[in-house]
Amino acid sequence: MKLKPLYSFLQGDISKIEKELEQAIQSRSSLIEEASLHLLQAGGKRIRPVFVLLAGQFGNYNIETMKKVAVALEMIHMASLVHDDVIDEADLRRGRPTIKAKWNNRVAMYAGDFMMGRSLEVFTLIEKPKAHQILADTIVQVCIGEIKQIEDKYRFDQHLKDYLRRIKRKTALLIAASCQIGAIAAEVDEDIHEKLYLYGYYVGMAYQITDDILDFTGTEKQLGKPAGGDLLQGNITLPVLFARQNPEFRAKLEKVHENMDRNDLKEIIDDLQTSGAIQKSWEVSNQYLQKALKVLSTLPNNRANRTLKNIALYIGKRDY
Amino acid sequence: MKLKPLYSFLQGDISKIEKELEQAIQSRSSLIEEASLHLLQAGGKRIRPVFVLLAGQFGNYNIETMKKVAVALEMIHMASLVHDDVIDEADLRRGRPTIKAKWNNRVAMYAGDFMMGRSLEVFTLIEKPKAHQILADTIVQVCIGEIKQIEDKYRFDQHLKDYLRRIKRKTALLIAASCQIGAIAAEVDEDIHEKLYLYGYYVGMAYQITDDILDFTGTEKQLGKPAGGDLLQGNITLPVLFARQNPEFRAKLEKVHENMDRNDLKEIIDDLQTSGAIQKSWEVSNQYLQKALKVLSTLPNNRANRTLKNIALYIGKRDY
Repeated sequence: MKLKPLYSFLQGDISKIEKELEQAIQSRSSLIEEASLHLLQAGGKRIRPVFVLLAGQFGNYNIETMKKVAVALEMIHMASLVHDDVIDEADLRRGRPTIKAKWNNRVAMYAGDFMMGRSLEVFTLIEKPKAHQILADTIVQVCIGEIKQIEDKYRFDQHLKDYLRRIKRKTALLIAASCQIGAIAAEVDEDIHEKLYLYGYYVGMAYQITDDILDFTGTEKQLGKPAGGDLLQGNITLPVLFARQNPEFRAKLEKVHENMDRNDLKEIIDDLQTSGAIQKSWEVSNQYLQKALKVLSTLPNNRANRTLKNIALYIGKRDY
Repeated sequence: MKLKPLYSFLQGDISKIEKELEQAIQSRSSLIEEASLHLLQAGGKRIRPVFVLLAGQFGNYNIETMKKVAVALEMIHMASLVHDDVIDEADLRRGRPTIKAKWNNRVAMYAGDFMMGRSLEVFTLIEKPKAHQILADTIVQVCIGEIKQIEDKYRFDQHLKDYLRRIKRKTALLIAASCQIGAIAAEVDEDIHEKLYLYGYYVGMAYQITDDILDFTGTEKQLGKPAGGDLLQGNITLPVLFARQNPEFRAKLEKVHENMDRNDLKEIIDDLQTSGAIQKSWEVSNQYLQKALKVLSTLPNNRANRTLKNIALYIGKRDY
């Protein structure tokens, strides 16, 4: 099952967004432009623009307006990816060298700042104070989430709620904001754009949990990086929290560190995969997806609604 | 001569801004809050808030509104300082350890992102699209400037216009934006806020040139860091461009590198100081200040105008 065919009717508009993204990164500095283009061409699912467009279909859908919102949100996402790569000391992203690896940390940091600035520049064309408020709040929360992730690294005694708050900030809020701001830009009524926010939040949570599961179950080819990378970097995700209930696993877990023997890591990953933790994590993801579907059932039943439903169902089944 | 007495009549409002800054950095992450507070307490001249307030006095001055604008602009400045410290690998800022030195690069990067986000959050309360446009454009230009600074490092054959463009982006534009946005928030007429922008640009250019001069002429105590730091890091500033006209100096200059012998660096600095380059640099700074004063002469002659004039005169004389 693939994601793209679910919204093939938006393909023309998505191409327009792609072009707008290429325009947005043009600059007087060839270095910054090359670095940004490098990231842009690495692709990615452009899932945030898709949510923006779908949410906009609940109101006065004007592609010129929707395009600006979609580009702004995708660029904020891209900026956070570049800065993440600095933090994670990652050399690969989507199977290609990161900006940080190809140039250096300094370029990665300013390329991220630049993309954030361009995003705001594009977004100022949307004259809806509420939309600006949501976007700014989201940016702050994403940053707090990133710092929390640093604070929580290798904290093997953390709680489930620490994890859930972290992925809310890290992923779910920006998807929720994409849905809500897309709707606001299309002048959708408040009760509907708030529901779309909620849908985005639930789907975002499920999406990140799935990502965290796939980091253990995916192959290196599927992930574009070796499996178990999150754990190695000290990021404690949902499958680890479930597997940790076993004292034997927990004892091994507490010995995890960045420079550990890869065979020891492999043993932990094998233990985790046979512990039932993966299955339990899928169940949590599904609970969020059920909530997302329930929200949709209270919204007008149009093509966008059916597509949002299919996307939620897809996330529940995706295997990379 | 001191800067502060020039705007003592604003002291009450500046204290309000100080409190608002402390509030703005509060967050759910103690790490991010400590890091931001550390930077806040290091002080600084708060020159951008002062320009915001003074520009606002040309219109409907409401401290509640002006406060938001001032905080937003100061926080963008602070964010850029934190990211600069990562770039510069600086361990001292205003005589205190940098966030980067006290924690690490990762914390410095996200603390900067966080301050940028909070700045936007505060700024969304200003419902003036034009102000948002100017701010976003400024952020983009500052980032391009930062990347250009990386690209231009140790390029001993660069032109004067490369330097001028760089300091425009690095410093002058944010001061110009402080003046213009402060005026726009106070509903000042377009012809006046555009002139205030121009004043800010000229003063900003002079301010940065002065900074670049003082990096050679200041003592370690005055600067809060050793003299000649810019050159050591490969930043080619105006005094260097003038001194470079001497072939002997140029030959020595081309051997400058990060890990060079400090005695060799001292020799270059001594040569530069006796070359007349400092005097020529002051002259360029003064040309900008004259232009700033000329702009002021076309604006209403009120207390704010006289204060802006005194600030320009102060910049022409400051010795640290």
